[in-house]
Amino acid sequence: MPDFPQVEFEQRLARLHAGMAEAGLDALLLTSEAEIRWLTGFRTLFWLSPARPWYLVVPAKAAPIAIIPSIGAELMAQTWIKDIRSWSAPHPDDDGVSLLLDALAPFSRIGLPKGREACLRMPLNDFQRLDAGLANSQFICASELLNGLRQVKSALEIEAIETMCQIAGRAFARAPQLFSQGQSLDQAFRAFKIALLEEGAEDVPYLVGGAGPGGYGDVISPPGAQPLKRGDVLMLDTGATRRGYFCDFDRNFAIGAADDRSKRGYDCLWRATEAGLAAARPGASMADLFSVMQAVIDAEFPAPSGQSGSVGRMGHGLGMQLTETPSIVDWDTTALKPGMVITLEPSLTMADGCMMVHEENLVITDGGCRLLTPRAARELPIL
Amino acid sequence: MPDFPQVEFEQRLARLHAGMAEAGLDALLLTSEAEIRWLTGFRTLFWLSPARPWYLVVPAKAAPIAIIPSIGAELMAQTWIKDIRSWSAPHPDDDGVSLLLDALAPFSRIGLPKGREACLRMPLNDFQRLDAGLANSQFICASELLNGLRQVKSALEIEAIETMCQIAGRAFARAPQLFSQGQSLDQAFRAFKIALLEEGAEDVPYLVGGAGPGGYGDVISPPGAQPLKRGDVLMLDTGATRRGYFCDFDRNFAIGAADDRSKRGYDCLWRATEAGLAAARPGASMADLFSVMQAVIDAEFPAPSGQSGSVGRMGHGLGMQLTETPSIVDWDTTALKPGMVITLEPSLTMADGCMMVHEENLVITDGGCRLLTPRAARELPIL
Repeated sequence: MPDFPQVEFEQRLARLHAGMAEAGLDALLLTSEAEIRWLTGFRTLFWLSPARPWYLVVPAKAAPIAIIPSIGAELMAQTWIKDIRSWSAPHPDDDGVSLLLDALAPFSRIGLPKGREACLRMPLNDFQRLDAGLANSQFICASELLNGLRQVKSALEIEAIETMCQIAGRAFARAPQLFSQGQSLDQAFRAFKIALLEEGAEDVPYLVGGAGPGGYGDVISPPGAQPLKRGDVLMLDTGATRRGYFCDFDRNFAIGAADDRSKRGYDCLWRATEAGLAAARPGASMADLFSVMQAVIDAEFPAPSGQSGSVGRMGHGLGMQLTETPSIVDWDTTALKPGMVITLEPSLTMADGCMMVHEENLVITDGGCRLLTPRAARELPIL
Repeated sequence: MPDFPQVEFEQRLARLHAGMAEAGLDALLLTSEAEIRWLTGFRTLFWLSPARPWYLVVPAKAAPIAIIPSIGAELMAQTWIKDIRSWSAPHPDDDGVSLLLDALAPFSRIGLPKGREACLRMPLNDFQRLDAGLANSQFICASELLNGLRQVKSALEIEAIETMCQIAGRAFARAPQLFSQGQSLDQAFRAFKIALLEEGAEDVPYLVGGAGPGGYGDVISPPGAQPLKRGDVLMLDTGATRRGYFCDFDRNFAIGAADDRSKRGYDCLWRATEAGLAAARPGASMADLFSVMQAVIDAEFPAPSGQSGSVGRMGHGLGMQLTETPSIVDWDTTALKPGMVITLEPSLTMADGCMMVHEENLVITDGGCRLLTPRAARELPIL
């Protein structure tokens, strides 16, 4: 039961084939979940098990070939992929390598994502056997090609992401009922995960956050058992999914009362996000978005160490993965195009190391951009 | 706030150092979540973002060195790791490679997991730069060493897994209230995820299953919107986590009524599991477990194609990952040792391609084994 009609995948393949022709690639080898799903529609949580590799070979002028463990053959047969070659995995000494060698032997220039954000999801020993067995082939980095294609979402992908953003927006709107003084942080997280599922999320792979007086120490920790206290700023940042597409945004709440510094921090980040939204349009670069948001923050909360906080960036691509390329950093010159879905995620660090962070999701349109998330409240909400 | 006291990690490092000495390794390079967490206690969902690599270098005779993006430095500083080297990531052209080169330069024989179930979680381009920059070093496969060490769990790890198994057991016990005729399969999944969270799970990274008359077509699909019908066998297989440790087991239920074949299939798998439990003791091999379970199944449900179903194995290791080495397959001669936590997962395929699967989790003890899951009901429960 594919998530999209076949024409969606045919269009993706056509774009990929055009890019491969331009790059002079004879074939492509894909090993990771998002890349294989992008082209096939094959969606399963089974990737969580590291026991079995999964491969897709894309010839430059033919339909893709799935080379996968037999446990996935029935599910793959429900996608638009016709050429499915499988073996009983795990195998004592040949987990798909011979099948890969057969499929790739005709090709000399084989694209493989080896660059930014890429992960070779196969044992390195197996890759080295494959590489050695393809004496007349070379592996050429295809990260730029693939990342570039995946950055621009189709109308159906944008709809999927927006649906998930609206679900999470409804869950955040229930904050006054979900979070309260005295509640432990892990219970607050659990309550929010349940609310996300109740509102229509299918999975909640990602929920991080923090709570503390006037801000939080970091933004990647799992929750502890410490109770929420009056004056704490509580932040939850969720990457939940529906049909395999993510939202990724956060909300801040003050518990009982908010001090002036928290209010000022919130206000500054809200305005930094506004500046990002105003600048987000076709032709602007990721670096442009970074600089307009950083300017708002620097004016009021210059980074204590002279650095721009420790987060390292102020947003990123979004789609089938929680984070995708490109990054909102001062060196990423990727130009925005209609259909790109990104997050704006300005953060600031106060003198004592306390942090605050805001995040919204948007799609670039012909004239500018459109928010996919319900915009955060203008002032720090007090629960 | 580490999940275990420091002595737990000191013991793991001592075992690793002993194994490295035996293998003649001067250092080890780790890049994946489970391996790094096993040695450091560093736990965060942030690994879900592919934007940043994370590294741990383990010298043969010294404490581990974390080489990580600055966004994780504060969380890593809460573990027992003292030597933390960080950079602002993502970086335009040096995402940790220079730091890795510095840390690894003194060593000539560097262990790296390259074999079964290993994944190099760094861009291949970066690995190739690293490899080229370490002119006097070679990377030696350390998968066997690491998999072997991680297979044997400590008392605290066993407790963590057992706690999660009991939580999921309580959620499954609520099946009569959770599942009903007419309910769509995706709503059944959602209800079960919520029950897992309510009972104490922290995350539900994995829930697959199926439903159909007399069995299900495969065991890795996401749920569709089809309603549960009278006579369906509903199976849910969950990998939920608490403190970063997984359970991984399933339960079968008949909706309203069960036909004879479903009852016979259930009974056969229940007895196959019993045979596995009776055989699971120190000294027995994974292949032994496979053959005793397969014998029970073959006697009543010989595989239609002559193969042993399409699942490919009948259980696996369990711990910080949903599935870990070793595998219950006819070629895996790994001998069971006290402290190993494994799943027994016999499955059968009926003549029309319909499947059934059972799964339990257990720990190997001095004298035999101990179930960590509440044992499945003796007969197919009818809801």
